[in-house]
Amino acid sequence: MRLNDVISAIFRGVGQVMFQNNILSGILMLVGIGFNSILMCLFALLGTIVSTLTAIFLKYNSNNIKNGLYGFNGTLIGIAVPCFMSINIWSILLMIIASIVTTLIVYVFEKQKKLPTLTAPFVIITWLMLLISYAFPILQQSKIEHTISKEPLLLLQALSLNFGQIMLQGKSLFTGLLFFLAILVNSRKMAIEFFLAGLLSLIVCWLPFVETHSINNGMYGYNVVLTVLAIANILNTKTHIYIKVLVGFILSLVIQFVGLKLGFITLTAPFVISVWIVALYNTFFDSKK
Amino acid sequence: MRLNDVISAIFRGVGQVMFQNNILSGILMLVGIGFNSILMCLFALLGTIVSTLTAIFLKYNSNNIKNGLYGFNGTLIGIAVPCFMSINIWSILLMIIASIVTTLIVYVFEKQKKLPTLTAPFVIITWLMLLISYAFPILQQSKIEHTISKEPLLLLQALSLNFGQIMLQGKSLFTGLLFFLAILVNSRKMAIEFFLAGLLSLIVCWLPFVETHSINNGMYGYNVVLTVLAIANILNTKTHIYIKVLVGFILSLVIQFVGLKLGFITLTAPFVISVWIVALYNTFFDSKK
Amino acid sequence: MRLNDVISAIFRGVGQVMFQNNILSGILMLVGIGFNSILMCLFALLGTIVSTLTAIFLKYNSNNIKNGLYGFNGTLIGIAVPCFMSINIWSILLMIIASIVTTLIVYVFEKQKKLPTLTAPFVIITWLMLLISYAFPILQQSKIEHTISKEPLLLLQALSLNFGQIMLQGKSLFTGLLFFLAILVNSRKMAIEFFLAGLLSLIVCWLPFVETHSINNGMYGYNVVLTVLAIANILNTKTHIYIKVLVGFILSLVIQFVGLKLGFITLTAPFVISVWIVALYNTFFDSKK
Repeated sequence: MRLNDVISAIFRGVGQVMFQNNILSGILMLVGIGFNSILMCLFALLGTIVSTLTAIFLKYNSNNIKNGLYGFNGTLIGIAVPCFMSINIWSILLMIIASIVTTLIVYVFEKQKKLPTLTAPFVIITWLMLLISYAFPILQQSKIEHTISKEPLLLLQALSLNFGQIMLQGKSLFTGLLFFLAILVNSRKMAIEFFLAGLLSLIVCWLPFVETHSINNGMYGYNVVLTVLAIANILNTKTHIYIKVLVGFILSLVIQFVGLKLGFITLTAPFVISVWIVALYNTFFDSKK
Repeated sequence: MRLNDVISAIFRGVGQVMFQNNILSGILMLVGIGFNSILMCLFALLGTIVSTLTAIFLKYNSNNIKNGLYGFNGTLIGIAVPCFMSINIWSILLMIIASIVTTLIVYVFEKQKKLPTLTAPFVIITWLMLLISYAFPILQQSKIEHTISKEPLLLLQALSLNFGQIMLQGKSLFTGLLFFLAILVNSRKMAIEFFLAGLLSLIVCWLPFVETHSINNGMYGYNVVLTVLAIANILNTKTHIYIKVLVGFILSLVIQFVGLKLGFITLTAPFVISVWIVALYNTFFDSKK
Repeated sequence: MRLNDVISAIFRGVGQVMFQNNILSGILMLVGIGFNSILMCLFALLGTIVSTLTAIFLKYNSNNIKNGLYGFNGTLIGIAVPCFMSINIWSILLMIIASIVTTLIVYVFEKQKKLPTLTAPFVIITWLMLLISYAFPILQQSKIEHTISKEPLLLLQALSLNFGQIMLQGKSLFTGLLFFLAILVNSRKMAIEFFLAGLLSLIVCWLPFVETHSINNGMYGYNVVLTVLAIANILNTKTHIYIKVLVGFILSLVIQFVGLKLGFITLTAPFVISVWIVALYNTFFDSKK
């Protein structure tokens, strides 16, 4: 594979976190992460490179490699390490191993055709990394005690972080703007779906039992955005597409709510589960017609 | 009429407040109202339902019903009640009666062809309701004394409320964003006109005799936005369209200024009058050519 | 030339500051300046009128006049006077003379074909005016001592002023929005390039030696935006357009950085120099192929 193709595959890999097979999309997403944290930006790039090179080295399907499909789980693992762990030689080593292993998991996943891979490998690997970190204090971040006071609803912040949290970015409001632009330069249709999904997920603020603090931090939007994009664009949905998008919308909100209430670090698991449910329905019911 | 058509007619009815014959537009507008006040959102829906069902029951033109043309005055009446009155069984009863009567007025209006109906029935009925409420203390809101201190010009708030006030929404800046999106999903052309009209109406801030408080509350924009949209899209304007839009732009600003100075609750009367003036000009001068 | 054409030429002249040969673009830019300062808006209009009338009076190429190409340097000179000088009869007189002379310089520039004129006449004339003002205290503004304290990075302000500073507007965040819309109504492609260039120039905030105060004031964006637009749209670039845009992007940032460090009032000189370098490369290397 030529160097040009490898570089292209890496940036497309970043873009594929939000289903954008486009170099400029990947660059804009990295810039967006950079406005939030330069360290995370570098780790995102590193994770994508390791995952992609692993696939090249193992001679996996070269079209999939070129389209960035072996990269995006590495991107997320790269970000997860500075997000959840202390940065030192051990955590970096762990990240590199995790980025290699994730490519193997993606490869195994592709052997079956019923469920799309999505970010399932990232979720599995990161949960494993978190378990490991609980056993090794050297991997742990110094705990920050958040004393959550009653805070007002901040809709603009919530909207922006709904997008930022897709890549675990929870500080800069500019990150969400760049993620939106990253999609807009590739597909106007997906950009509108992306924006509307992030916006409409804010209606959870009408439910009195949902914590305002979580809404403000974008915790109730990122799974919805990914779910809507996936059902409308990635699944080969042929019938009742609006109803299925609505079902995915509600499922991802409910699963995230339950996950947060139980104290989980949910990552993008609610998104993966919601899309899989719709995908299974498509396979078993729609294909019979 | 099938249930599907009735539901569609109701959401299109909400959308028609801003000339959008589109279900998604109506839903987004309701969500926008909901971010400002859930109570108003419910009343908007209720008013639309009553108005639309009245038209169905009276077997009015079924195409007009399906396109939501009997609904949108009911939407606005529904919102006006929690906006201007105390909420109790009497005001709700008054609202239901008003929503029924408005459909009759729309029907009468359609008998002539010179003037488009627009929101004239809403303006007439709501002024009547306000007169009634002055006679019955039980309908009145507890008076809030606004001590208007000298406030700075807040352009972003003013821009957003210029859109929100189209449906009497004056608190949340998110409402205006949702109204803009509601139009964007239906027509890019109208969305640009909508945005530019709301933005350019802010030039009233250059006139030293215009109260900053009113500009900040969006009082100088909503009539302009509706007027520009109507002249550019609803009237069958064939010649000098730019000049007529400009005339409507200025007329609606001047009428609103005079109305506010005289202490009126102007509602959308400046919009209705401005468009009618241009419509009459079209009828009597342009059609002769 | 008919009055219609003259009025059109004046507004197109304003629009040409950002390469938009479009009346509405010019109007929106003037409104944008007006939100920042009505005085500057009037001077911008005056400068454009004087420059354009000079060209008409001297019977210069009538197509260029109609397309506003003799107006835009006058626009900028008009703005520069209230920006850098005290307003009195002498500075106004100086401005009128400068606006006349700039048209002569544009005319001379057009005799050669290697370099596009761009805003070079404005830069030269304004530097001359500044030199003159140093000799005549009556032209000088009362000095305002800026005590620059350590300030936080304000990305949204920086983004907006990146656009506003193209026309020396550094106060209102609304000005940048109107400049963006001014381009959007004429060309969606250029609007996207405009926005992305202004946004991506903010990555200078990652360089620790760049002053946050200058970034917040939009000083690092306006040259980049103009450079990107010019290389992508004005130069007849045929090959490697992405790489040339990237080179212009970096050049304009570096030249602006050096200029600011040396204490210059750089105006749009970094933009002019960057585009000229790429233009010369195009002439001497690409045309041989």
